[in-house]
Parts: sequence; structure tokens; C-alpha cells
Amino acid sequence: MNTVEQAVIIGTGLVGTSVGLALRRAGVRVWLRDRDSRAVAEAVRLGAGHPLPATARPSVDLAVLAVPPAAVGEVLRDAQREGLAKHYTDVASVKAPIIVAAAGHGCDMRSFVPGHPMAGSEQSGPGAARADLFVGRTWALCPTAAVRPEAVATARALAELTGAAPTELSAEAHDRAAAIISHLPHLVSSALAAQLRTADSTALRLAGAGLRDVTRIAGGNVPLWLDILSQNADPVADTVDDLIEDLRHVAAELRSRAAIADSNASPAPALASLLDRGNDGRQRLMAERSS
Amino acid sequence: MNTVEQAVIIGTGLVGTSVGLALRRAGVRVWLRDRDSRAVAEAVRLGAGHPLPATARPSVDLAVLAVPPAAVGEVLRDAQREGLAKHYTDVASVKAPIIVAAAGHGCDMRSFVPGHPMAGSEQSGPGAARADLFVGRTWALCPTAAVRPEAVATARALAELTGAAPTELSAEAHDRAAAIISHLPHLVSSALAAQLRTADSTALRLAGAGLRDVTRIAGGNVPLWLDILSQNADPVADTVDDLIEDLRHVAAELRSRAAIADSNASPAPALASLLDRGNDGRQRLMAERSS
Repeated sequence: MNTVEQAVIIGTGLVGTSVGLALRRAGVRVWLRDRDSRAVAEAVRLGAGHPLPATARPSVDLAVLAVPPAAVGEVLRDAQREGLAKHYTDVASVKAPIIVAAAGHGCDMRSFVPGHPMAGSEQSGPGAARADLFVGRTWALCPTAAVRPEAVATARALAELTGAAPTELSAEAHDRAAAIISHLPHLVSSALAAQLRTADSTALRLAGAGLRDVTRIAGGNVPLWLDILSQNADPVADTVDDLIEDLRHVAAELRSRAAIADSNASPAPALASLLDRGNDGRQRLMAERSS
Repeated sequence: MNTVEQAVIIGTGLVGTSVGLALRRAGVRVWLRDRDSRAVAEAVRLGAGHPLPATARPSVDLAVLAVPPAAVGEVLRDAQREGLAKHYTDVASVKAPIIVAAAGHGCDMRSFVPGHPMAGSEQSGPGAARADLFVGRTWALCPTAAVRPEAVATARALAELTGAAPTELSAEAHDRAAAIISHLPHLVSSALAAQLRTADSTALRLAGAGLRDVTRIAGGNVPLWLDILSQNADPVADTVDDLIEDLRHVAAELRSRAAIADSNASPAPALASLLDRGNDGRQRLMAERSS
């Protein structure tokens, strides 16, 4: 079985530093690099690994690219030119555009396994990292036709060392799934939170746990999410259109009911259907997660 | 200072039973009534109070109507005809339609204080009740021009006995606020969860904590929310329109960017603005709640 004895992490933000902490806990030797030397210093202080030496390079099994989606292609090309590691993976929230970008930059696709651990936080930076961020979570791997089996095995070993469950699927399936389960929710949470910016203070004082939960992810890092949503533009736009269609029907129905004197007399089929389907979808999510 | 020595709770669901538990803990004598005798029996078993006797009526300071919004007018009229208590309040999530319905049913508006404790759960029924449901929460009171000051003082005492902070505002201000902080989030959470009903199982397995949080309230009781959203139809439809407008711009922008070869080159002002405003709104919410 392939395993990871030494790893390099490029990008010591929340995810990169969490990978470092998890691998260190699993006994892996971890080297860290970031273009921001303070971020490396903080990740080192937190125990996520040691700074990657400029010379006397260690023999590294796997380089984990934990940089923003738009940067992965270039960073991968440079790392491969340096011969930084035997195998490479990334953690970006979109996969098909990453593969296109990597191929476009002339990267060696035989050693690269596109990956995405399904875990994160609305916080960012190494200070928010946690060694247990990936425990019990799914780690998506989207191997291309070009990749060597041992690269995939190494990426699977990485996921398992952090406590995650590796799952292989195509980049396109990943991106459609991510649009529904992550990107659309982020956009909608932001749109809800945006309405609070100009709301009365009284309204905000009335707010309860429901609003706090539903807007939590709206607190996420703006440049990162601008990048993620832009990279997955078409699948996200499709899901937004579906959601708008649902809400448009409900709004029209509510207005027509408000115009009726005794609104309790008239049925509200669009609203009833949306609430029912919402109940079903929520139940399905919770069942799937606990299975 | 007015206080509550004996209270009747009509409707022993989640909120009514929680009020009973909280009042009992504060030393109030609590009587319970529900048209479903099993719900009363369960609330009694949980310690929320005693069944309201059919004869030998106690002298009750306050009746708390914890019935669905559409039922409040009629239940209030019947309770006042019975002379059940000195003062009356309700807990419905909409306030202007409740006042219209109560007046329409010929209720005595001098003893009725429309109220709404800003606390709840996606669960329902007496079994989900909690004595601390209202601790630290806002309890909205929307006194009309007709109400006696001692009725308002008694309703304020109720809120304080449960650990909540009473806040007076107009019914219209309450309903506009509730649309933004509660009703729209519920609708949108349902619309997000509805998309999960038909999603691939793979997609659901990839789901993380963000999706779980954002769809939690979609698990709420469908008939209750159908009632709430229908009663607050116009304010809710207004906020839905605003949200759709935001999302429509973003979807159009994403599609136009997807059509460009190097999408990183083109700016995304609508998306960037939405994410920024979402960040601001979330920060404002958390600041308001902690102040």
C-alpha cells in the first residue's frame, strides 16, 4: 500500500495548515511553503510542520497544493519544474477548470490527482486550522485518464491519514455536486445576509438561531469565494436559475393571496410544494449523512 | 409591578409547553389546555403544568394562546367569552393579521397584547419543548392603541419570567422585520433543501456542515409555516423579490463570464458586491446579537 512519509504543503491557509496538523498527528514529516512568510511562521508555530528548506531538498512523496483555485495551474507547473515531489494533489473547490488550467500550463498530468476535501470553515488563515477538520468527512478525488495509479493511491493515503474517506468521481460530477451542495448555498446565504446590511436594528435584535445558522457561511472569505464561484460559473448559474424559478412562483402566489380578503380560504399549492420538497430534501440529507 | 401568579396556556405544542416549563420553573401556577388531549397529557408528564379543570376555574392573570396564527382570532374570542383570564397574549409569528382577525372576531382588544417570542425549533410538539427556550431571547410585544397598560405590564412580566427580554414595537414593524429575519430565510432554506430531494447520492455524500446549517430550518413543520408565510404574504413577497433580483444579476454575470475563455481576466462586480454585502450583513448580525 502506498503511504506518505514526507509531504510538502504549498499554501498555509486554513486548509493547508489543517492538512499539516492532521498529517503531523499521523506521524508524517511535513514541509511548509507559502508566499507569505508570516503565514508559514504561524503554521510552524501551531505545529503544522517545518519550513521547506531552500536547498538540501527532502525526498517528498506528495505535494499538497492548498492555494486559491485560480492559482493551482501555475503553482503546479512551477512545483513540477522544481521536482518538488513524486506526486501532486490540490484541494480546490472546483475540479474541471483546475484540470483545464493544469493541462494549459503544460503540467505533467501523470503525477497530478485533482482533489477536494469536503471540509472548511467560514474562517480563514492558519490560525483557524484544526487537526480534526477532515475527520469523518469525504475527500473527493477526480483522477484523469492520464494519471498513474500510484499517484492516486498516494492521494488516497493522504485523505485516510487525515481521517477522511476518499471518494473517486469525475471532475464534472464533482463540479455539478459542488454547485448544489456548496456553491449555491454560499451564494444564497450571502444574498440573505446582504438584506441584513440595511435592515433596522430592531429587526436584527429579533433575530434567532435560524438566521444565525442560515447566514453563517456568508461570513466566508470574499476573494476565495469570488474565485470558486467564478470558476464553477455554469453549474452554479444552472442551480441559481432553478432556485429563482421556485421562489418566483411562491412570491406570485403570496401576492395573489394577499389580495384576497380571507386568504385562509385559498390554497397555496406552490408554497405547500416548496415546503414539502424542502422537508424531503432535508430528511434525505440527514439520512445520507448518518448512513 | 405586575406579575403572573397563575397562567393558562392554550396549545401545548413546542412553544406552549416551553412557556409552561419556563413559568413553572419561575414558580408560576400553570394550567394547560389543548384540543388534542394526548398533547396535554404529554405536557403534564413533562412538568409544564396541570390540565385546566372544566369547572371550579382558577383565577388566572394571563392566558397565553400558543395556537397556529390562523386560529388565534377565534381561540381568543372563545377564551374571552369564557372569561378564562384577566389578560391575554399570543405567540404567533405574524402580528398585523392577528390583530385584524381578533378585531374581526369581536374580541375585547383592551385585554389582548399581541406577542411573539423570538425562539423556536425546527422540531415540533410538546416532546421538543425546553424550559430555557426563551432565555436571552427577544420577546416582541405589539400593543395596540386599545390595550390597557396593566395587560402590557402582565405580558412583559411573562416574557421576563421565561428569561426573555420584552421589546415593544408596532405590528407592522414586527411583520416587516420577521419577513427579513425569519420568513424569507425559511423559504430560502426550503428552496435549497428542495434541490437536494432529486440530487445524486454522491452529491449528498460530499455535503458538509455548511449545507447542514443552511437547510436546518427547512426541516420545520410544513402546515405551521404554510400558515405563517401565508399570513405575512406581502412583506415576505417583497423580500423574495429583492433576493431574486440579486441572484438574477449574479447568474447572468456568471453565464457571461463562463462564455469568456479566460474568465479570470474579467471582473465580476455583481458577484463581488453580493459577497461583500453578505459579509457586512453577517458581521452586523453577529455584532447586534452580542451587544
